Amino acid sequence: MNESNSGSPTDGTTPNRALVRGSVTLVGAGPGDPELLTLRAVRALQEADVILIDHLVAPAILEFARREAKKMMVGKTGYGPSCRQDEINATMVTFAKAGKRVVRLKGGDPMIFGRAGEEIAACQAAGIPVEVVPGVSAAQGAASRLGVSLTARALARRIQYITAHATNGRLPSDIDWKSLADPSTTTVVYMPKRTLAELAETAMANGLAPDTPAIAVASATRPEEQVVPATIATIAARLAKAAPGGPVLIMIGRALAPALQAAAGQDTASEHPLPSRNLA
Amino acid sequence: MNESNSGSPTDGTTPNRALVRGSVTLVGAGPGDPELLTLRAVRALQEADVILIDHLVAPAILEFARREAKKMMVGKTGYGPSCRQDEINATMVTFAKAGKRVVRLKGGDPMIFGRAGEEIAACQAAGIPVEVVPGVSAAQGAASRLGVSLTARALARRIQYITAHATNGRLPSDIDWKSLADPSTTTVVYMPKRTLAELAETAMANGLAPDTPAIAVASATRPEEQVVPATIATIAARLAKAAPGGPVLIMIGRALAPALQAAAGQDTASEHPLPSRNLA
Repeated sequence: MNESNSGSPTDGTTPNRALVRGSVTLVGAGPGDPELLTLRAVRALQEADVILIDHLVAPAILEFARREAKKMMVGKTGYGPSCRQDEINATMVTFAKAGKRVVRLKGGDPMIFGRAGEEIAACQAAGIPVEVVPGVSAAQGAASRLGVSLTARALARRIQYITAHATNGRLPSDIDWKSLADPSTTTVVYMPKRTLAELAETAMANGLAPDTPAIAVASATRPEEQVVPATIATIAARLAKAAPGGPVLIMIGRALAPALQAAAGQDTASEHPLPSRNLA
Repeated sequence: MNESNSGSPTDGTTPNRALVRGSVTLVGAGPGDPELLTLRAVRALQEADVILIDHLVAPAILEFARREAKKMMVGKTGYGPSCRQDEINATMVTFAKAGKRVVRLKGGDPMIFGRAGEEIAACQAAGIPVEVVPGVSAAQGAASRLGVSLTARALARRIQYITAHATNGRLPSDIDWKSLADPSTTTVVYMPKRTLAELAETAMANGLAPDTPAIAVASATRPEEQVVPATIATIAARLAKAAPGGPVLIMIGRALAPALQAAAGQDTASEHPLPSRNLA
């Protein structure tokens, strides 16, 4: 790898590592399908010396990595007991200070529920150059496979992403329930598994109609993708019964009605033009 | 191009067009930087016979298109007098029925404020196979260049996208103002130019603190990207003064504070590790 553009004089064989400047690139790996990586993400993976990988990243993504790159799983599993963000930050900074090109590979988009802010701040505090490569979010991947727009002029002029999982593993105490009960919005819930029943009940208690469409998508855009079509009144029980593996998100709102209709018709109608998928 | 997988018998030189099945692929072109195209989007562009292009798509994206492809600008400019969605749908379906592989190329992600639902419905009604390729949204592109996470544990656990532009060109009448005034959210406003002053005033009247950070980003991720850092109280006047060209979005919320601080320090601090950008 030619590192002459780092400004370090070399003898042609042993670059002066002390003068080679390390860097950190936060890369969005997208929802899972490797074809949904961006060109910039592929380039970052091919140039990386070290790749720090979230558990949410689909293994197939790593086939784009440089073979010689050091690959480390550092991500949290979502419900693990300890939050090791400080440790991840320290690892990232240590490798970059040693002159390595570090890629921090995160599921979906780094800037949405990815704690990217803390990692950027750690790099900046250490004087490490940091770049962010955005990615397709899991919600966008899921919507594309369902074939439903998350906004629809007459039905949803607002789309919101929330997390159902606070630091203590419970439903966050500061959810704006009125905004969830708004019939003209589409809500995407990240990390809902444990708290979904409580979330659905509270949303209905705040006025969300029980027949509002709610769809769970597990492992969006991956071969094992699983879709659980329901309503806000039935989604928690149906998801618990289906018990899919992999990351799950819930999409709630009237704009999703076409996906429910398609799912209901999929057993009988063979001419549905969207690709078939696993229905729970 | 080998079309044997369409099941049509050919004599090796002239495929039987009547038996070649056309298709429509809605492709998210991302925010503008061609490197933010997905691998799947590039492949769709390279296989397309016809490409129907939104005005919001950056011209550099089209360099990935097959040279022989027919390219047509069909998008609305945002404030044009007439909505030609029916015409776009009809064009798309007509080409696909003639056996063409049609790509409908849209800025950002097709499923967010892209009227994809209407286009998918038109294809389904005509029996045309339709696929959606998600893209990086403009907001995600803008956030990546600013180096600010749209969510931050202590500051924003909810992110929402709204449009400030109804069919009649005015502020939509059904905006959930309480959800905009929520201090624990990040709001991204699409198509804000004309209605921004009214939107900001109404949000403040509903309780949003006047010193809440608000940042306008024009032509996100493109060479001509322009950033206007402000607060919700000052953004409308500052954006009017800067008058940037290209698509504009506004990001509002406390999670954006680091970007304001970086902008304030950019004149004096030369060691800011994020790439410099055009500040209005």
